[in-house]
This record gives sequence, structure tokens and C-alpha cells, in this order.
Amino acid sequence: MKAKTPKDSLTIFTEIVLPNDTNNLKNLFGGQLLSWMDRASAVAAHRHCKRIVVTASVNNVSFAHPIPQGAIVTLEAKVSRAFTSSMEVIVDVFVEDQTVAGKKIRANEAIYTFVAVDQLGNPINVPELIPETDLEKQRHEGALRRKQLSLIIGGKMKPEDATELKALFFPEDADSKQDA
Amino acid sequence: MKAKTPKDSLTIFTEIVLPNDTNNLKNLFGGQLLSWMDRASAVAAHRHCKRIVVTASVNNVSFAHPIPQGAIVTLEAKVSRAFTSSMEVIVDVFVEDQTVAGKKIRANEAIYTFVAVDQLGNPINVPELIPETDLEKQRHEGALRRKQLSLIIGGKMKPEDATELKALFFPEDADSKQDA
Amino acid sequence: MKAKTPKDSLTIFTEIVLPNDTNNLKNLFGGQLLSWMDRASAVAAHRHCKRIVVTASVNNVSFAHPIPQGAIVTLEAKVSRAFTSSMEVIVDVFVEDQTVAGKKIRANEAIYTFVAVDQLGNPINVPELIPETDLEKQRHEGALRRKQLSLIIGGKMKPEDATELKALFFPEDADSKQDA
Amino acid sequence: MKAKTPKDSLTIFTEIVLPNDTNNLKNLFGGQLLSWMDRASAVAAHRHCKRIVVTASVNNVSFAHPIPQGAIVTLEAKVSRAFTSSMEVIVDVFVEDQTVAGKKIRANEAIYTFVAVDQLGNPINVPELIPETDLEKQRHEGALRRKQLSLIIGGKMKPEDATELKALFFPEDADSKQDA
Amino acid sequence: MKAKTPKDSLTIFTEIVLPNDTNNLKNLFGGQLLSWMDRASAVAAHRHCKRIVVTASVNNVSFAHPIPQGAIVTLEAKVSRAFTSSMEVIVDVFVEDQTVAGKKIRANEAIYTFVAVDQLGNPINVPELIPETDLEKQRHEGALRRKQLSLIIGGKMKPEDATELKALFFPEDADSKQDA
Amino acid sequence: MKAKTPKDSLTIFTEIVLPNDTNNLKNLFGGQLLSWMDRASAVAAHRHCKRIVVTASVNNVSFAHPIPQGAIVTLEAKVSRAFTSSMEVIVDVFVEDQTVAGKKIRANEAIYTFVAVDQLGNPINVPELIPETDLEKQRHEGALRRKQLSLIIGGKMKPEDATELKALFFPEDADSKQDA
Repeated sequence: MKAKTPKDSLTIFTEIVLPNDTNNLKNLFGGQLLSWMDRASAVAAHRHCKRIVVTASVNNVSFAHPIPQGAIVTLEAKVSRAFTSSMEVIVDVFVEDQTVAGKKIRANEAIYTFVAVDQLGNPINVPELIPETDLEKQRHEGALRRKQLSLIIGGKMKPEDATELKALFFPEDADSKQDA
Repeated sequence: MKAKTPKDSLTIFTEIVLPNDTNNLKNLFGGQLLSWMDRASAVAAHRHCKRIVVTASVNNVSFAHPIPQGAIVTLEAKVSRAFTSSMEVIVDVFVEDQTVAGKKIRANEAIYTFVAVDQLGNPINVPELIPETDLEKQRHEGALRRKQLSLIIGGKMKPEDATELKALFFPEDADSKQDA
Repeated sequence: MKAKTPKDSLTIFTEIVLPNDTNNLKNLFGGQLLSWMDRASAVAAHRHCKRIVVTASVNNVSFAHPIPQGAIVTLEAKVSRAFTSSMEVIVDVFVEDQTVAGKKIRANEAIYTFVAVDQLGNPINVPELIPETDLEKQRHEGALRRKQLSLIIGGKMKPEDATELKALFFPEDADSKQDA
Repeated sequence: MKAKTPKDSLTIFTEIVLPNDTNNLKNLFGGQLLSWMDRASAVAAHRHCKRIVVTASVNNVSFAHPIPQGAIVTLEAKVSRAFTSSMEVIVDVFVEDQTVAGKKIRANEAIYTFVAVDQLGNPINVPELIPETDLEKQRHEGALRRKQLSLIIGGKMKPEDATELKALFFPEDADSKQDA
Repeated sequence: MKAKTPKDSLTIFTEIVLPNDTNNLKNLFGGQLLSWMDRASAVAAHRHCKRIVVTASVNNVSFAHPIPQGAIVTLEAKVSRAFTSSMEVIVDVFVEDQTVAGKKIRANEAIYTFVAVDQLGNPINVPELIPETDLEKQRHEGALRRKQLSLIIGGKMKPEDATELKALFFPEDADSKQDA
Repeated sequence: MKAKTPKDSLTIFTEIVLPNDTNNLKNLFGGQLLSWMDRASAVAAHRHCKRIVVTASVNNVSFAHPIPQGAIVTLEAKVSRAFTSSMEVIVDVFVEDQTVAGKKIRANEAIYTFVAVDQLGNPINVPELIPETDLEKQRHEGALRRKQLSLIIGGKMKPEDATELKALFFPEDADSKQDA
């Protein structure tokens, strides 16, 4: 399978926040945004592997900025790392208000993991991902730590084997290992 | 404010998986389930504090079992820990298929964090949570580790200060500290 | 088939009233509530018989209390009586407003009838229902009168044969019959 | 207020049954049809009185014919009787299948009651209804019996005062009364 | 195939404009109205030919009058001309506001073209249409000009062959040709 | 007001065709696509002028390629010409099927016109548009002809004054005029 770049899977989704998408403060419901992010990142994962993809997990979505009714929301999803049959996708959320100034801010990000499956639902291999920009390289690297963390939490990896993750807690320790 | 128990915030939501909720394998879309879980857990958070609540983050949702079209999905959401103005809510997802046997399985769980806010969107205090059952106590304890992890990832806490979390990686180390 | 209790079919559904569910007075549309009640009671009927169920009729739904936007609506549906292949389901609707006081009231009730069918849509037998609480027993008894009324209205029973129903109009008359 | 005829409030609604409107037998959900009927009959009630109307009750909806996916459903709603501030609306449901023959059948009927209210939700008077056709006259008459039945069930009328309704059970008795 | 009249395909659709259908001025979204018009005109085309129909094109929809939230919208769709396997459908949109006066205005019109297809999606013949009223005859005639215009824009007809259309620009010229 | 380029208003919208968006041939409903195109082009018009925009008309949408369920649909909307207070927006629709080959085709295009309005709904001026690429220049030019056609059809311009449009029918004639 031919390797791909994050650009190959870039998926853009633009929506206006309607009354029914909002809570009592007239801001976008978290659940509605989660659903949009899942849809956009599923398309990105599909574009990377051209196979059926199913959501495996959602990690660390934080809703830092409330998004008001009437705002224009743009989601940009790209595969950040490909493993054997799974892909990590990062979604960046941008918000424009509808004023003349129309300033556009990055409201939050979310990390989804998808698995490529065949028609029977069995996992199948996906192409490798080659990051290009600095941000893409940094996210590619972080994906490994996030995968280790998720394996530990799920009880499928021993903490002491999570080399990349331990470096988060004991940087000097990890450095010396790299020196060796 | 009077302390509450997890039972006080228990919120149950039952739905049938309809054609429009499904992907090409005729299983429930991850995004649709995320949206239902957000709605149920928002009601649970509200029932704990009786104030407007907004989604702050979503953590570690894993989709272990595909949920087929026609299945009956039951969500049970309860507050697992209350902090100053935020609440962690855990949602358990159960699935019944529509056969005569009708076996019911626990399909997955999700962890949401909500913040209580006033009419202007400013954070306000919430009542304490007193866990009762063994599972509730275990989840109450785990909530602290999860909060530390989220603060570290967000760059708001130094890894070396995350006592509870470090214990996950170096249990003996944490034990000796507790002995001291 | 093993008899069941109303508890076996209890189905709970919790929702927040969103802007799109409301009329010009910003109260919940009757039609939206009817649709939610049908969904919840269909699940209850299914849980009783574990077969495909189809709505046969709706009886005597009254909308006594307007339900405002933002309110939390809880539906509790339970089978109240099982006939040969049909089941009567009663749905109780509770409403919490989103204030600190958060008082919860019983807003209204509805009565649905479902028929259990096989894959071709032909009626099939369902298990017997054994009521347990006083309210369940009272509703179980009332179900027979409601069925007679519905048969008379549909022209499928002669009024003079509707013993239980006539008792509603001429209690003394019915009493004497029971004495006989 | 000028009296109106049923024709003045006639409201027609045509829809195609889509996949998401159907149950596991690929027939239209009862709950979806209930919601459409509520919408059509609310418009009919509004056209009669030109005021805000709210659903007061739903009576005796029976789902005699399953309606398959892809079918064209036509609802025809007309006010059948006006009381002081409430209106009874009868909805007739017709179904065309999408074959070349395209036969059209009357699938079922439903009876809704609406109350006209002012901006504060208080009941206000509505115009009188003058039935014209034979069917309209027959439904106009039946409306009174249905209202009495609903008052008795709600505990707001004594059975012995429900003259029209008693006639249903003891026709000869009622006749003699009319003779008197 | 037996010829039909426009009356045979008349399709009426009535809806209330809900919050979620509106833009920031609280008027009905153009996109929502386009979707309703497509649905109503598809049923009209189907009623003419009793076959599966697919939207081929939309022409010249103008939104002259904003339609406010709460308004009652009535769509009336009728086939205006039948060609070999395609049908032109004109939809008239009427709007009633919900005041006591309740004046009803014709808000706009739209022109859709549908093609009748078999189960494989191949075009099949449709019955002829015989217009009856003056308006129907005028629309029947105009349909030919609109078809020519659409063929020219699509590059499938030479402008000089579009006899009816040229008459729009050079009436005298077209007249002389007809004289010849 | 500072002039803008088409690139400034580019709006991308990506969606998967779900069961509920499809007709009986399991292809995307025309009405659903019309609604998505209206949403995307409204955002493009807004991005050009940073004001509230309302749909004024839809022109010449043709549905050349059926779009199957499961396909990924990408809409790209850009302002093609700005007039005093109105903007023409062209939407290109691309379709990817979900096979490994995943070929992407241009399925159709649509032309919408929006008007910029103030809070009271009155038209206001919009910035000029400067086309850059060849396609953008060609569409910019065509927009004038389309506007003339729409004015003639609406009876607001005499055919003989529509210089650009006449050139479509009598190219040599228009050329000679330009020579003069």
C-alpha cells in the first residue's frame, strides 16, 4: 500500500449553529459538536484508507470556548498517525462570528481513533502516514504516547513498557535512555 | 450546599437504533452515540447541581462493541465526583438485541466533565458528592487521577505534582510516599 | 410462556425540551410528546414479549400541563395488561424545571396498545402480566374496561355485553350482577 | 364571531414515508404518524379560530393498516365541532402505494382536541362550527358523546348526566327520554 | 397511456415554520423551502406517471417575500407539461400569518423538472398532460420555452433552433416565421 | 469597502449520504442536496460581505449524476460576481464513492443569488469581487447574462436592452455592436 500524507485526508466541514443545536445559554451543545467532529473525522479516516471505518475511541476533547448561535463553525480533520489497522485523526475547530469584523478563532481540538474494517467488520491493514509540516510531525509523535496511555488505561500494556509516555513524567530519565 | 449521592443524579435514556443512525455496516454511528451520551450526562450533571451546565471535556470513550440497527440502547449516567465547580459524569451503555433471548450486554462507557455556570456563563460552586456503592467509590477515586492527567495534558499541572497519577506508573514509589 | 411483572417492562426515557420541539408559546408541541411516548411504550411492549411490536391504538392522552422549553421530561412506560396478542402500555410523564428548586411534577399520562407480530406481520401470543403494586392492579383492572370501550366504538362488541364498562354508568346494577 | 364551516379549516398534508420513519418491519412508526397528525390538526384548529392553539387531548387513534416505506401518505384534517374554547378535529389518513396501479386507501382516522389560548395561555372563545355534508353532521353529533366520555373518565362529569353517551348503551332508554 | 390533467397530480403540503427552519432574521431558510418544494413536486410528478421519479433540474426559484417563523406555509404542486419521459412541475407557495386577520398571500413559485425511471434508473415514457384552466394552458406553453433555454445553456441545442425562445427577444421576427 | 477575491469566500462542506437522505432508488434526494447547497452558498455569500444574507433566487440547478447512499459529497461554494447588494454564488458538487478506487467526479453545479441585508431586512451594499483564475473570470462574465435573463423573466428588463444575453442568440450581431 502506498504511503499517504495528512493532506490526502484533509476533510473540511462548515456549518451554521442553528437554534436547535443550542443549550439554554444559546451556545452550541457539546453533543452536537461531538457528532459533527465524528462525521468529519470518519471521512478523513476513510480518505486515508479507502475502506469502511468505525469509531474506536474518542480522547481528550476539551470545549474551551463556547460557540454562540449563528456562528459559523469550520472543522478541519486530518489523519495524524496510522498504525496497523487503526488511524488517529485530529479535528481542529474554528469559529467565525457573524459580525462585520468576523474574527476567526481556533475554538478547540479533538482526537478520534478509527479502525478500518472489511465487510464483515474484521480489522484490515491501512497505508502508512508520512507527516510533512512541523505541526503534523509533532502530532504524529504525540500519537504514540496517546496510544500507550490508552492501552494502559484499558489494561492492555504495562506502564513500565510505555517508554514514550514515561518520558512525560520523567523527562531526564527518558533522555538518558535515548543517550544510551 | 447539601451533599448528594450518585443516585440523586441517575439519568436513564432508552432509544432504538433507527436506519438513519447507522453506518454502512448497519451499526450505530459513533457520533450519534456521543451525542446521546452528552445529552444524558448533561441531565445527570444538572440534577446534581440544579444549575445550567456546559460540557467541558470528553475523555476516553471507547467503542468496544458495535451496536446493530434495531437494537435497544440504554444509557445510565451518574455523577462520579464533584470538584469546586465541575462534575465528572460516567455513562454506562447497555445494549439489548431484539431477539426472543434478548440478552443485555454492557457495550461501553464514557466519561464527560461538565461545569456549572450562572446566566452569564461564569463558573459557580456545586454540592459535594458522597459515593455509596463499591463501584461508585472506585470511580470517585479514579476521577482524581483523570483530572490530574487532563491538567498535565493541558499544561496546567507539572507531572511531578500529580501524586495520584504517578502511582499508576510507579506504584511502589507512591506507596513509600504515603508511608512517609 | 413465563408470566411477567410490570417491572420487567419498565422503560425510562429522559429528554430536554429544545427550541425546535416547541410551539409559539415556547411550550412542547403535543405531537413531539406523542412521538416520544410512542417510542418509549414500544420499547416497554417489546421488553414484555421480546417480539416485534406495532402500535395498534392510542387512547385518552390528555395534555393537562404545558411543558416549557428547557424543561427536563421523563417518561416511564410499563405494560399494564396483556391480552392474547396485544398489550396495553401506560406512560407517565414527569417534568422538572431547570431552576434550583427543580420541582418535579407528574404532567400527564397516556395509554397505548401494541400488538406483537411475527416477521410477516401476523399477531402472535404474548406472556401474561401479573400486576404487583396497588396502582398496577388498579390499572390492570381498568384495562379491561378500556378494551371493551374500544371494541364498542369500533363496532366489534355490543354495548350490552360490555359488563365491566356498564358498571361505570350503573355501579349498583353491576354490583347486583356480581352478587348473583 | 362569525360561524365557520368544516371546509374553512380543511388542512392537507402529503408526505413520503422515508427509511427513518419506519420500524423493523419497514412500516411507518406509529409515533411518527401521531406527530404528523398533530401538526396537521393544529393547523386546522388554527384556521378555524385564527388564534394560538394547544393540544388538549388525543382520542381513539387506531392503526388498522400498516403503511409501508415509500408510500405516499395524505392527511386531511377538519374541525368537526367547536365548543366554548375547544375544538375537536378529525384527521383522515389516506395511503397510496407507489405502484403503477397506485390504489389509494383510507388507512385510519384520529381525533384530536385543541384549545384556543391568548398570549398568556388562557382559554378564549372560538367561532361556532356549522357542519354541511352528511359525514360532517354525523361527526358533529358524535363529538358531544366523545366529550362527555372524556369528562367522565377525567372525573369531571357524573355518568348519569351524560345523556348522549348513555344512549350508546341503552338506546331505548334514551329514546324514551327524548320522547318525554 | 391515458392522458392526464394537472388536477390529477395536484399535491398539497402544509407546514408551520419552526425555530430550526429559520435564519438570523427569524425568517424561513431558503434551503428548507427548496427541500419542501422538491418533496411536494416529486409527489406531483409521481402522481402523474405512477413511476419512480428523480429530480432532473430546478429553474428560476425566486424568494420574493420573506416567510416569518410561526407562519403557515402551503405548497401546491401540479405537473405543467409532460415531455417524452420528463415532467415540468410548478409549485405555488402560499403563506398565512398567525394573526386573527390571517391574510394569505402567494409568496413565490418554483419550477422543477423530474424524469420517470424504471428500477434500474433508465428513463421511461410518461402520459401526456392536457391543461384545462387558462393558467394551466399558459404554463403549459411556457414550459416549451423553458425547456429550450435549458437545452441551450446545457449546450444541447443551437440558439437558432429555439423558435419559441427567440420569440421572447424578437417577437416580430418569430411572428413572420410563423406566417411563412 | 475593500474588494475581495473568490478565494476569500470559498466554503467547503463534506457529508456522507445517509439512508434518510435517499429515495426509493437509494440515491440522494434532490431536495436534500438543494438544502445543503443553500447552506454552503449562504456561508460563502456571508464570508464575502460579512453581513446577514438571504436567498434571493436559485437558477439552473441540474442533477446530471445520481449520488448513491454511502457516497461522500463535497460542496465547494464561491462568490462568482458581486452586484450592488446582491451576490451570485456558484456551488460545485463533487462525489467520491466509498470503494478502494475511490474515484472523485464533479456531479453537478448550482447557481444561487443572495442579498445582503441589515437587521431590518433592507438591502445594503457589498464589496466588489475581483476574479483571479480563468474559470472565475468566465463565471464572472456569465453572471451578467444570467442576471439579465432573470430580470427579463421577472418582467423588469426589456429583452432588447439585454445586450450580453442577445449575444447568446446572435453572436455576429453582438460582435458588430462591440465594433461600433
